[in-house]
Amino acid sequence: MSANIYSARLTAAQAFLKKEGLNAYIQPSSDNHQSEYVADKFKVRTWLSGFTGSMGIAVITEKAGYLWADSRYFLQAETELSGSDWQLKKQKLQASAEHIVDLAEELPANARVGCDGNLFSVAEVNQIKKAFKKKNIELVTKSDLATAIWSDRPKAPVAPVFVHPEIYAGVSASEKINLVRSKIVADGATHLIVSALDEICWLLNLRGSDVECNPVFYAYVVLDASSVHLFIDSTKLDATVSAYLKSINVDILPYSSINSFISELFPVTDKVEIDATTMAFSLNNIVPQGVEIIERTSHISQLKAVKNPVEITNTRHAMLKDGVALAKAFVWFEKTLEHRTVSEYEFASMIAQYRSEQAHYYGESFDAIVGYKSNAAIVHHRPDNKNSAVIANEGMLLIDSGGQYADGTTDITRTICLSAPTSEQKLHYTLVLKGHIALATAIFLQGTRGIQLDMLARHPLWQNGLNYGHGTGHGVGFFLNVHEPPQGFAPAMGTRGTAPHELGMITSNEPGFYKEGSHGIRIENLLLCVPHAVNNFGTWYAFETLTLFPIATNLIDKSLMTSQELLWLNNYNARVYNALSDYLTGDEKEWLKKACAPI
Amino acid sequence: MSANIYSARLTAAQAFLKKEGLNAYIQPSSDNHQSEYVADKFKVRTWLSGFTGSMGIAVITEKAGYLWADSRYFLQAETELSGSDWQLKKQKLQASAEHIVDLAEELPANARVGCDGNLFSVAEVNQIKKAFKKKNIELVTKSDLATAIWSDRPKAPVAPVFVHPEIYAGVSASEKINLVRSKIVADGATHLIVSALDEICWLLNLRGSDVECNPVFYAYVVLDASSVHLFIDSTKLDATVSAYLKSINVDILPYSSINSFISELFPVTDKVEIDATTMAFSLNNIVPQGVEIIERTSHISQLKAVKNPVEITNTRHAMLKDGVALAKAFVWFEKTLEHRTVSEYEFASMIAQYRSEQAHYYGESFDAIVGYKSNAAIVHHRPDNKNSAVIANEGMLLIDSGGQYADGTTDITRTICLSAPTSEQKLHYTLVLKGHIALATAIFLQGTRGIQLDMLARHPLWQNGLNYGHGTGHGVGFFLNVHEPPQGFAPAMGTRGTAPHELGMITSNEPGFYKEGSHGIRIENLLLCVPHAVNNFGTWYAFETLTLFPIATNLIDKSLMTSQELLWLNNYNARVYNALSDYLTGDEKEWLKKACAPI
Repeated sequence: MSANIYSARLTAAQAFLKKEGLNAYIQPSSDNHQSEYVADKFKVRTWLSGFTGSMGIAVITEKAGYLWADSRYFLQAETELSGSDWQLKKQKLQASAEHIVDLAEELPANARVGCDGNLFSVAEVNQIKKAFKKKNIELVTKSDLATAIWSDRPKAPVAPVFVHPEIYAGVSASEKINLVRSKIVADGATHLIVSALDEICWLLNLRGSDVECNPVFYAYVVLDASSVHLFIDSTKLDATVSAYLKSINVDILPYSSINSFISELFPVTDKVEIDATTMAFSLNNIVPQGVEIIERTSHISQLKAVKNPVEITNTRHAMLKDGVALAKAFVWFEKTLEHRTVSEYEFASMIAQYRSEQAHYYGESFDAIVGYKSNAAIVHHRPDNKNSAVIANEGMLLIDSGGQYADGTTDITRTICLSAPTSEQKLHYTLVLKGHIALATAIFLQGTRGIQLDMLARHPLWQNGLNYGHGTGHGVGFFLNVHEPPQGFAPAMGTRGTAPHELGMITSNEPGFYKEGSHGIRIENLLLCVPHAVNNFGTWYAFETLTLFPIATNLIDKSLMTSQELLWLNNYNARVYNALSDYLTGDEKEWLKKACAPI
Repeated sequence: MSANIYSARLTAAQAFLKKEGLNAYIQPSSDNHQSEYVADKFKVRTWLSGFTGSMGIAVITEKAGYLWADSRYFLQAETELSGSDWQLKKQKLQASAEHIVDLAEELPANARVGCDGNLFSVAEVNQIKKAFKKKNIELVTKSDLATAIWSDRPKAPVAPVFVHPEIYAGVSASEKINLVRSKIVADGATHLIVSALDEICWLLNLRGSDVECNPVFYAYVVLDASSVHLFIDSTKLDATVSAYLKSINVDILPYSSINSFISELFPVTDKVEIDATTMAFSLNNIVPQGVEIIERTSHISQLKAVKNPVEITNTRHAMLKDGVALAKAFVWFEKTLEHRTVSEYEFASMIAQYRSEQAHYYGESFDAIVGYKSNAAIVHHRPDNKNSAVIANEGMLLIDSGGQYADGTTDITRTICLSAPTSEQKLHYTLVLKGHIALATAIFLQGTRGIQLDMLARHPLWQNGLNYGHGTGHGVGFFLNVHEPPQGFAPAMGTRGTAPHELGMITSNEPGFYKEGSHGIRIENLLLCVPHAVNNFGTWYAFETLTLFPIATNLIDKSLMTSQELLWLNNYNARVYNALSDYLTGDEKEWLKKACAPI
């Protein structure tokens, strides 16, 4: 039974602890670039514990193995850990360091805690050290559990890199490089070390396939006044890409030579800029004495988040294609349900199939979540071929999926009801919808942060003592990571809560509600931040909803909606019909007309 | 003409700059304890510039004198600075350091900027130094402009200190001292330096009269494992207070000996705790080598903000008295208006007069704001005997006032219309009221911060492209400062925005709207944070409105209100009637009945 494998791996990890003289070990889910989604080689935490969620941290002590996850993953983790010796620890808040506080409490004074300093950012290590200081607990950052005990560990990926043409990207790599260069010069630095994979992709107008669903490749960039050094396994570069890199004056160096390059920066320079939230602690540690490290939020991250006009126009095309593909998939689904059941996995596959028929399609932007009835209450439920509920023509269903197109990244969630909903289901759905509309229609001053806007989406649920255990939205990349910093909508003080929304940013609007054992609801569209007005009070922004797909109306309790909310909903569905109907025929068009009918 | 005085003082300040070899000087409005309201001795910025607002910073350069104030003070500052050489600089955000950014830009590299380090907190000096670093601008913190040029400067106040009995305070000083002691021990410190005046008052259950409207006295406290040292001018202490202090084992030391005491802390201890936001930079600088300074948000501030059950019960009494006094004042006002005009100042005085007839009254909690018509658009308009509009029986009027009672501090704003309002006035008033109600009825999870709740009050105005240039609320002391940290409702990341609301905290709910040259609206009640529910989603809190006075209904556009909002309003006014009517007679009762009638 598979659970025993994970218990055995926990035992092996504990033996490693003993051998290394450690009292505990922290194993996060990230890679050397602090990515959220990682190549198989870096899925150490999953290999150890069996928990497959994209977020979650394993903490191994001499006596126990803990898997820390937030409420989005509670049900999933309980299932995946059941039968093994791993114990679930429930994080109260997303992206909080509760495991560190807990560990510091559990351990004796002067304890030693191991970790691989490549998997933690500078900021994270500082935070851990601070929490450990009071009890004089030592953090040993050069400890490498995975290499020691994972014998058949996958190799680093070597998928080919390809150019993302300027007709999509809107701005040439040379222009981007010059812009970033001017910013680091203004900061007083001579060199910028870029570690975040999506930042490298954006900067050089390149994409890759090293990580599932995220079109990135493993590499580093060091940019200085005259050069751009790309550290990459050169087998990933074909003649076209090599010629392209040459044309924009990018030097190619072996991936592994980043360490020696950085360690030799002095006396080449005495001022290097990094982003402490994405730069690995171990890499930062190599920066030689004599070099001042300027820590600041990455300029690239900020520039990348603000989509240029070409990117925005392209994204509108991608949204159209995505809506058409989803409409076809929903028609197939509903027709099929009339004569047989459909598994969650099959529906997810068919959605991907219909998306793949669209132009410039590259792949899914994340593993689709199709959750039937109580499965939808598992916020990140990802059905696979073996483990998938069978959908009949009744009950509620949540579908969260997205596509990667050369002209944009999509991410959309709809919740539908295949039979008459209960009044409780209608209440929950309507409250979520009211929150969604409040955010979609928000008018706000320049400088407004995600934590402020998040409140608008949560308010209808909170007034009823209900909540959802995830943020209300995340930034979305342009043919890049579906989760893109810095901005978002979140009830906490992290980056998603504190970054101001700027014109041109694209952010998801996805309030939800989950009743364990019963149903899950989420309504997600992508929002573009647009200008609204300028007056005595300042500069006002608003959102334009980019996503084009009908929002289900049969789950709505109209008595709870204001006339303005109903107007928004009917206008939105009418806009969807007008946009998509020309690309559909016969039954599909009929289906769309019905789905978009005003209420 | 008085303006010339301020121009002359600016010239004298510039001569001081030249003599001291400084390029600029920063003069804030605070005192050595970082108080918001200060004794006359510390009103240096007012003496220099003529600007009397409670917030605002003077920046003197070789060529100019700037007075920085936020939008609450724009109109007032324009009036008060007019005719002098002082120039108004408009801060975009409250409590932001825009003057520092601006100064750093204006000055050449390697410039020298003077200030009195006693008037700046440790945190403020660190912030200024950081902003100055890039251009290597030196901050000279031992520069003392006031002593050099203000020849007839007032002496330090020596008003008597008195005991605040436990029947009001609810908890004895000894109990508070033990509680705070246990907290600093847990932090690993042996000594706590208390610099904030209201913290000293709360800790020792003492009050004073050194500062107008704030019942505090100038002093320091140093608390260690066995002693409490009170540094105070002993002429303020009569036999009763001295005996009380002896009974709770408080040592009395001269106020000025705080410096030598702190400088001799080593080798007495090696761990001292301070709050970097209230501890003066200069005092902190005296802490000797060998002593580690533990900076953290003051435990006293947090303990003081959470009112105990006795304080809460007492506050309810104070609210009742305050409502009764205001009702009598309003009846007097409306009756008088029938046959003659009333000046803003006269009405403010009569409100104070009626309050003073209530039990345990001590004084006003701030200078009342009575703003008629366009004067109300001057957010902090404080009428005086000479400079006061004459109110006739028509048009809008804003009244913001509060009382200090031994059993509580009040702060209330009402906006009324003495004749038929315009549709624009009704729109503005109704939007403000909707925001007020949204906050008053908010249900929120434990841990929710002011920046999140602030959004609820602002949302109705923002949806119409309207805003107000101040926070939505501040903490309120218990027979202490009417502005009390840490919590509040604010759209920025300062303490008022980021501190979570805890059970027992009292906070003002005061959204507003101001149309320059026309009218000003603010509706303010005090809210108590109370438990609401505990369920799967967490622990829920809500607010109970403590203030008891009718909210005007003739300014409401009912068509903009939801049925729930109208229900809240009618219930609130009915509750006010039930609470106050027994304490009123004849005409007063009739007036209240009409004012509280449902709409």
